[in-house]
Amino acid sequence: MELTHIEHLGIAVKSLEESIPYYENVLGLKCYAIEEVADQKVRTAFFKIGQTKLELLEPTCPESTIAGFIEKRGEGIHHLAFAVADGVANALAEVEGKGIRLIDKAPRRGAEGLDIAFLHPKSTIGVLTELCEKGK
Amino acid sequence: MELTHIEHLGIAVKSLEESIPYYENVLGLKCYAIEEVADQKVRTAFFKIGQTKLELLEPTCPESTIAGFIEKRGEGIHHLAFAVADGVANALAEVEGKGIRLIDKAPRRGAEGLDIAFLHPKSTIGVLTELCEKGK
Repeated sequence: MELTHIEHLGIAVKSLEESIPYYENVLGLKCYAIEEVADQKVRTAFFKIGQTKLELLEPTCPESTIAGFIEKRGEGIHHLAFAVADGVANALAEVEGKGIRLIDKAPRRGAEGLDIAFLHPKSTIGVLTELCEKGK
Repeated sequence: MELTHIEHLGIAVKSLEESIPYYENVLGLKCYAIEEVADQKVRTAFFKIGQTKLELLEPTCPESTIAGFIEKRGEGIHHLAFAVADGVANALAEVEGKGIRLIDKAPRRGAEGLDIAFLHPKSTIGVLTELCEKGK
């Protein structure tokens, strides 16, 4: 498996509207898109810094996993997403062969049209890890 | 303040020896250095992916803030470090002027000879945030 860079960091927030001003006015980044990802029950705001995106994740209902995360741990970094060079399906097969527990057995479609899959944090030393690649 | 890229992600782990094999053998990254930062009571293992380093942080004693973090929240991402282009002292003055609470009022020397300073997560929507720049 070849990882090329950190594609994005997912950051759980209670409210996009209350969080975007910090990222724009204090850190000087620019929110270039807001997107709702219905099947993950989140609204997402995107920023770019160098090779990496910051994705703020706001839960759209109390049943969202992001709502549960905030309830349990507070706002903060939720997951780390690596860009893979050789296909998410190939990467999943390889890491599963090395004993890593998968949340997604096959790639699915994420925000911005990426192919994505999550590895289980019990297998990744506490870091909820996503593998992603631009969809074909 | 101009942020150029994510300089590193700090990841709290109980043991470098038990964590490095995951980063090397599963993710395919290469540990290029191990360094003890005595005043932060950690041992650090460094990996590079694209523009960004991953720094695994192992507490060297129970009084380490990293030990407290792991005790409270488990292993996982501890902080997010941005590279600033125009000096950490300038950046601190600017963000303090915008109402951000600082952990470090002035830059100090961190791992790899960087000038570093931390912003308080109460001001940064739950993300412990570090600003850093290559020391002059």
